[in-house]
Amino acid sequence: MHEQNIYDDQVFFEGYKKLRANPLSANVVIEKPALFSLCPDFAGKTVLDLGCGYGENCKRIVGAGAKSVVGIDISEKMLQVANAENSGENIAFLHMSMNRLDELNQTFDVVLSSLAVHYIEDFGALMQSVHRLLNRGGVFIFSQEHPLTTAVRDGDYWAKDDVGNVLHYKLTDYGISGARQMHWIVDGVTKYHRTFSDIVNALANAGFAIEQVLEPAEDDSRHNHKPLFLLIRAKA
Amino acid sequence: MHEQNIYDDQVFFEGYKKLRANPLSANVVIEKPALFSLCPDFAGKTVLDLGCGYGENCKRIVGAGAKSVVGIDISEKMLQVANAENSGENIAFLHMSMNRLDELNQTFDVVLSSLAVHYIEDFGALMQSVHRLLNRGGVFIFSQEHPLTTAVRDGDYWAKDDVGNVLHYKLTDYGISGARQMHWIVDGVTKYHRTFSDIVNALANAGFAIEQVLEPAEDDSRHNHKPLFLLIRAKA
Repeated sequence: MHEQNIYDDQVFFEGYKKLRANPLSANVVIEKPALFSLCPDFAGKTVLDLGCGYGENCKRIVGAGAKSVVGIDISEKMLQVANAENSGENIAFLHMSMNRLDELNQTFDVVLSSLAVHYIEDFGALMQSVHRLLNRGGVFIFSQEHPLTTAVRDGDYWAKDDVGNVLHYKLTDYGISGARQMHWIVDGVTKYHRTFSDIVNALANAGFAIEQVLEPAEDDSRHNHKPLFLLIRAKA
Repeated sequence: MHEQNIYDDQVFFEGYKKLRANPLSANVVIEKPALFSLCPDFAGKTVLDLGCGYGENCKRIVGAGAKSVVGIDISEKMLQVANAENSGENIAFLHMSMNRLDELNQTFDVVLSSLAVHYIEDFGALMQSVHRLLNRGGVFIFSQEHPLTTAVRDGDYWAKDDVGNVLHYKLTDYGISGARQMHWIVDGVTKYHRTFSDIVNALANAGFAIEQVLEPAEDDSRHNHKPLFLLIRAKA
């Protein structure tokens, strides 16, 4: 099992920190509102956040009345920030890989994950674990990079003319699921491309009923209306 | 409500007949095996086929032991062929638009539709109607052109170099749902592009649980592994 922990790379970590500090990033403007639009009323709920990073969502969820939130992350550096900036009553941060969810001896009303599952190689096993961790009728809400974003294998999203003007977004290799090596802040970051059917079938096989799907796009004609993120709410 | 009946256009009809006579067409080689791989055992089942065309699938389903099959189609010419070539005991062909399903006074164990729903403007209303027509626990299985196929608006799927060599498949306008006018055998055929989320949300809103999704591609590197069809099995 490949266990990627790019977030503990010092160069990556510093670069990521700058990226997240941008108040107009796609994460802030597009992904986060879409993610929370899928969430239920958190009042009295027990919640698990997979790949909690800085713990901002954990803090927000407790602020919205959750009974308790557990945030897990594979990166110690990320959790240092989480503990320093977003700790509080009813919040617990655990240093743990998403591949080891079966070690948790608690169940939850809501499992949430923001832009983290595309780092996981075995999505089917992850969905089985998440389903086991949910109370009956509980919901799983996650966001990931859209399959049309993770599809390309040559690293160049854009078809360009002779003088370098962007012509349009390329659709290549959508049908080939698997690892994608890319430069993102540093070289050698691995994300996993999965087709839409890979994702939906893994959810269905684990016992989930899909309730809602979102594909928000950047409001920018240069992107040819290509969705940036895929978000799904599914019921256990 | 736009009611398209291109199949009763004489030129279209003749062209379509030639197309379907090709034993190596994508319909025969890719779509039909995928569609039937999603189907349950038909023994003793009541079945509805939406957009039955020549009625070949109806005949096959009765041959597989179905109790009865109703095939509906908007095209009288198609149904003339169906009656001439594929009629039989326990098969009824009805001249009827998919937009008028609520006029059927019968329910079914299985509703099937092969490459027809992309002609329908209001997919949400169609899903509601199909759900009402299914017996409890019944399944809906359909195929349609893949959203990555219906996405383009300028009619040209291929990005080409200066001398006309195909470079790759273009992804344009995926995020813009709606009518696509195209030349397919004749000018002015309308198909409706819908995103994955449009399709899945319409199913979920109608009360369906999605059980399996397929995105078969042509085994041809020229297509950059772009899936040709989208097939879904959903439970009422």
